[in-house]
Amino acid sequence: MSSTYGEKIKISIFGESHGSGIGVVIDGLPAGETIDMDRVLLQMARRAPGRDKTATPRRESDLPNILSGMLGNTLTGAPLCAVIENTNTRSQDYGNLLSKPRPGHSDYTAYVKYNAANDIRGGGHFSGRLTAPLVFAGAVCRQLLEKQHIRIAAHIQSIGGVQDKRFHPTNISDALIEQLSQSSFSLIDKAMEAPMREAVETARLGQDSVGGVIECAVTGLPAGIGEPMFDGMEGAIAKAVFGVPAVKGIEFGAGFALADMRGSQANDSFRFNNGAVVTETNHCGGILGGITDGMPLIFRAAIKPTPSISQPQKTVDLQTGENTTLVIHGRHDPCIVPRAVPVIEAATAIAILNLM
Amino acid sequence: MSSTYGEKIKISIFGESHGSGIGVVIDGLPAGETIDMDRVLLQMARRAPGRDKTATPRRESDLPNILSGMLGNTLTGAPLCAVIENTNTRSQDYGNLLSKPRPGHSDYTAYVKYNAANDIRGGGHFSGRLTAPLVFAGAVCRQLLEKQHIRIAAHIQSIGGVQDKRFHPTNISDALIEQLSQSSFSLIDKAMEAPMREAVETARLGQDSVGGVIECAVTGLPAGIGEPMFDGMEGAIAKAVFGVPAVKGIEFGAGFALADMRGSQANDSFRFNNGAVVTETNHCGGILGGITDGMPLIFRAAIKPTPSISQPQKTVDLQTGENTTLVIHGRHDPCIVPRAVPVIEAATAIAILNLM
Amino acid sequence: MSSTYGEKIKISIFGESHGSGIGVVIDGLPAGETIDMDRVLLQMARRAPGRDKTATPRRESDLPNILSGMLGNTLTGAPLCAVIENTNTRSQDYGNLLSKPRPGHSDYTAYVKYNAANDIRGGGHFSGRLTAPLVFAGAVCRQLLEKQHIRIAAHIQSIGGVQDKRFHPTNISDALIEQLSQSSFSLIDKAMEAPMREAVETARLGQDSVGGVIECAVTGLPAGIGEPMFDGMEGAIAKAVFGVPAVKGIEFGAGFALADMRGSQANDSFRFNNGAVVTETNHCGGILGGITDGMPLIFRAAIKPTPSISQPQKTVDLQTGENTTLVIHGRHDPCIVPRAVPVIEAATAIAILNLM
Amino acid sequence: MSSTYGEKIKISIFGESHGSGIGVVIDGLPAGETIDMDRVLLQMARRAPGRDKTATPRRESDLPNILSGMLGNTLTGAPLCAVIENTNTRSQDYGNLLSKPRPGHSDYTAYVKYNAANDIRGGGHFSGRLTAPLVFAGAVCRQLLEKQHIRIAAHIQSIGGVQDKRFHPTNISDALIEQLSQSSFSLIDKAMEAPMREAVETARLGQDSVGGVIECAVTGLPAGIGEPMFDGMEGAIAKAVFGVPAVKGIEFGAGFALADMRGSQANDSFRFNNGAVVTETNHCGGILGGITDGMPLIFRAAIKPTPSISQPQKTVDLQTGENTTLVIHGRHDPCIVPRAVPVIEAATAIAILNLM
Repeated sequence: MSSTYGEKIKISIFGESHGSGIGVVIDGLPAGETIDMDRVLLQMARRAPGRDKTATPRRESDLPNILSGMLGNTLTGAPLCAVIENTNTRSQDYGNLLSKPRPGHSDYTAYVKYNAANDIRGGGHFSGRLTAPLVFAGAVCRQLLEKQHIRIAAHIQSIGGVQDKRFHPTNISDALIEQLSQSSFSLIDKAMEAPMREAVETARLGQDSVGGVIECAVTGLPAGIGEPMFDGMEGAIAKAVFGVPAVKGIEFGAGFALADMRGSQANDSFRFNNGAVVTETNHCGGILGGITDGMPLIFRAAIKPTPSISQPQKTVDLQTGENTTLVIHGRHDPCIVPRAVPVIEAATAIAILNLM
Repeated sequence: MSSTYGEKIKISIFGESHGSGIGVVIDGLPAGETIDMDRVLLQMARRAPGRDKTATPRRESDLPNILSGMLGNTLTGAPLCAVIENTNTRSQDYGNLLSKPRPGHSDYTAYVKYNAANDIRGGGHFSGRLTAPLVFAGAVCRQLLEKQHIRIAAHIQSIGGVQDKRFHPTNISDALIEQLSQSSFSLIDKAMEAPMREAVETARLGQDSVGGVIECAVTGLPAGIGEPMFDGMEGAIAKAVFGVPAVKGIEFGAGFALADMRGSQANDSFRFNNGAVVTETNHCGGILGGITDGMPLIFRAAIKPTPSISQPQKTVDLQTGENTTLVIHGRHDPCIVPRAVPVIEAATAIAILNLM
Repeated sequence: MSSTYGEKIKISIFGESHGSGIGVVIDGLPAGETIDMDRVLLQMARRAPGRDKTATPRRESDLPNILSGMLGNTLTGAPLCAVIENTNTRSQDYGNLLSKPRPGHSDYTAYVKYNAANDIRGGGHFSGRLTAPLVFAGAVCRQLLEKQHIRIAAHIQSIGGVQDKRFHPTNISDALIEQLSQSSFSLIDKAMEAPMREAVETARLGQDSVGGVIECAVTGLPAGIGEPMFDGMEGAIAKAVFGVPAVKGIEFGAGFALADMRGSQANDSFRFNNGAVVTETNHCGGILGGITDGMPLIFRAAIKPTPSISQPQKTVDLQTGENTTLVIHGRHDPCIVPRAVPVIEAATAIAILNLM
Repeated sequence: MSSTYGEKIKISIFGESHGSGIGVVIDGLPAGETIDMDRVLLQMARRAPGRDKTATPRRESDLPNILSGMLGNTLTGAPLCAVIENTNTRSQDYGNLLSKPRPGHSDYTAYVKYNAANDIRGGGHFSGRLTAPLVFAGAVCRQLLEKQHIRIAAHIQSIGGVQDKRFHPTNISDALIEQLSQSSFSLIDKAMEAPMREAVETARLGQDSVGGVIECAVTGLPAGIGEPMFDGMEGAIAKAVFGVPAVKGIEFGAGFALADMRGSQANDSFRFNNGAVVTETNHCGGILGGITDGMPLIFRAAIKPTPSISQPQKTVDLQTGENTTLVIHGRHDPCIVPRAVPVIEAATAIAILNLM
């Protein structure tokens, strides 16, 4: 109903933050293809907390244990299952959440949906930790795409209002894609790292948090991929990307700016370039009618600020029926945007592989 | 693969602009419920062109012929099929499109995907005309939602840069919803109709077109609807809404503006109000963790300008392999935003009914 | 929920016996392939009643009207919709069925499921008439399979206990497949037609009906088609074939006879034959582990006797709450087995194309 | 594509016989329901080998480790993942299978399908061992059904030609269901155990194996469950049951015997019984038009003899391209029918819960 994605490559994610393990089953992978596990682990490391000052203090090993679907480094064609153990989970921290839902979190909505039977500790199935198996699955899928010369990379478009450069809409080099997709603080303009980190630190000192925007590009996609209407590229990517916690908006190409353009500006002219059809501009983000046109596929996703903050917050007590105030103890990650970059890339890889 | 949506209520849309008919099959509707066909036709009329100066000159009767699934005005439980005949289609207009793809349209991407076998006339299966059966399906679904006191309405947030007021995030009256969902030029602030129409007329005189933003609200949704991760409300609505031609972005609640907020601003405080849990603000658009929180669900969709414009445009000739210029003859609708309002509402109704 | 089949090629069947039309939407067909409509109509004619003494007197034209998805005789890649008009439906015949369910029909179960709102006339959505669009869809799918040299044919294995020869398990000629798949009374041993027709006539004179068994073969299937576990060939075909009314059993290869064999008898030995791997026997029906082994795929389906008979039958009156007796007026088809042959072939074609 | 079942309750099975673990993810379970784990383990014990003389010598602990989805004994609403470790797997036994496919096994078909990349050891993903997570999933599903008074039990209808009694078609006591669903050698007539075991022992001494038939009943099902056409009860159960290795046929109610009946015999008369509608006979197996009629649902599945036998068998050498002979060393289970009983019950539980 919920934690599964895809018809061609079926992804089924399981786990709760404070259960004994989390993981993913991937069904439909092609037998005989090899997977470079070091590069999978690199992607998982990009997502893992605790690598720099912006991270949550909880340390995660996050090493996936492959239960099935691989023999050596080769896919066997059987469903691939990877499990990540949960360790070092201090459940006593979460006692009062059972009655006082944290603003901005899914505590209240999950409480209603699951009749108070859900595992609220650490956010349960809604925890950001569940993005670890998502990144694992995406890292496998992206390697399959790379064998077809399709590459995916995202960067931090903004944090707390501090902007990075944008992707060039029609010309994105392999070198840039390579650099971004390996970085743990992915930026086109490296000079923006310092002011972005400062914005995060300022928020942290104010017991607050910041959000941002992630811009993602896919290069090497041939024209003709995607389906009309409900399985178009935009819809398929959006469904996967909204599966990432904290995403509240997505726009393709010029996106919302298109609303204020005229048709004569917005339309991307077709031209021949060395025998290939290209467009001179790329306001459509590489997608027309839900189908790729051979230009870079580009989109941006809005990430809301981390809801966990140290300030006292107004909430309700579901047991007493009274308004109250909540203080969330412990240290909190004041900005998840850098770590969300590989998650957005992963969701994109899964969506695209399902349409190939 | 493509023109179908949903697991609980399966929508399957068929047809091409210049084939003999278009329509929809809706499988999974509840037997015994009654449908008010006049209200279905009202929704279809809101979408139909030719009702005012902004419309394409092609006249469509668009009267759906119910082949199955209803006996009188009662759903029988069998799949509901509605067919709309195509009449008055002048195919000779489209001859040169076979070799010269129109910028901003799906001509080129469909040509590649379908090996040049697709019916290019009028956009074929990618025609905006295919939104007629979508509105039909949505009009049926919304009546089923209304029986549970769930109401949907959208309005023109902007056209060509001219802005309407926004929905009040926590307080949207039934009267407003009722008014908007019946209007053919849906606005909260009626005074904006004149400047919006002027913006459209100015574009038209310049042989150009304009886009806009549509804002949609759903009221009466109980808390607890939606699934975690990939079948969350945002993803489900996004997949449906991106099925509407020309949509290039979607944002929920404060959307992209959340990226620049702090957590202390963005988090919506919970409060008791007459025994019910409400939030004081609604930056999350009524959705937390993919699940409704009982507040109005609000989102905005970006509509790109109509790609059909009368100006000469640069394109390629796929047969000669040379760059060329294209002039699209005939009169074109310089702004589809007003007519897209009921389509966005319809897609939303279908998405939500599938998650109930 | 119900009247749809397939993920790769999605079939959505609609209609009720006495509505204004029935039909099918087929989504996912490959653009550019040509379809020979005469051969589609031949299949539909094999299914249509009224061609000989065994048929129901109601005449059906059954000519499908293609609304979309084809341009000339070429698939466009858009969903293919075909509609068959319902004409000459005398609804007054069915008045008392509303309260007195016919034994062996779905009247009672549909009444309960659909809260008495279903269209009971002629069986509604459960009518055998709904097999017409199924045969249409199968006829399209089988032509796509034939382009890959995969051929399907079935024959009447038995009617009322009178047996035809069985398929040779390892050697089925193209000529036999060709002959069977065009016949309206498909038999390997033509000499059995007379005794079979006599069995039907005897039943008819006794105001009774007979059932039978249909045996179906698929030749030319390469090894390696099918998925493990729930999407194996057996399960996929069974799901499609049980979609045909009156089917109550299915067995592959030696089927139920395997239960009484020893492993040494049942196992099919592998041998090389001109460089190709073949099996010496074919007790498994061409399927091992849900996957084809390159030998002919063979199965049998049990068809129960037509439930409509002229004898008085015991039933209940749902309105009065009393036991009663029902006489179904009009003439009834005392044996649908010959006409079910192309329906079984069609269901098989749809199932297999979805696994290719 | 393959190892997943269901839309409402999604089952995703993973693992290979000689990988590090096997298991299942179950998505869509209702939050707040309790599961009795002892009764789950009882079902798993019925399937596990090594409990009596008929079993394979490999010992399995088969204790499932619940990674997520339960807190104590309560379902949290998040996907339930259970993992069973693989231990004591001696892979060296399987070396020559890589080139010499075992007759009756999926070695050859998997070799072709997966381009020789599949894990052939112990049958890999096709191993009967994968029925352990299937039984786990079924044991959870059947407890949810039991809360609605729906009960499932199967028995050994025959082994090697030795027959048990059949279920009474219209009257199956709770006591019988209870007894059968806990037994590790499920029989209605206990006196048949000795001759059945003798048939198995005779086969074993002849270095051979035997198959059988399993009969399954579901009681307490209300009328009106199931969908028309492709999601009817028969098709849904068949798809699940053919997911069990070695099943080659299925028949509902009187099944293939219906083919030789007349309509007047086959039709089940409706009668009122204490205000409830019942049928006097139950040739249809409790299903009309794919929908339950409130009577016991009854079907039989044919199980082919275990393909692993100690006799030398003819096969091919895929590496040398020559015909050869294969001897499978080690001890083999000469009859899996008793252990297949709980697997058939489990598949049935999963299928039915998906249609509720």
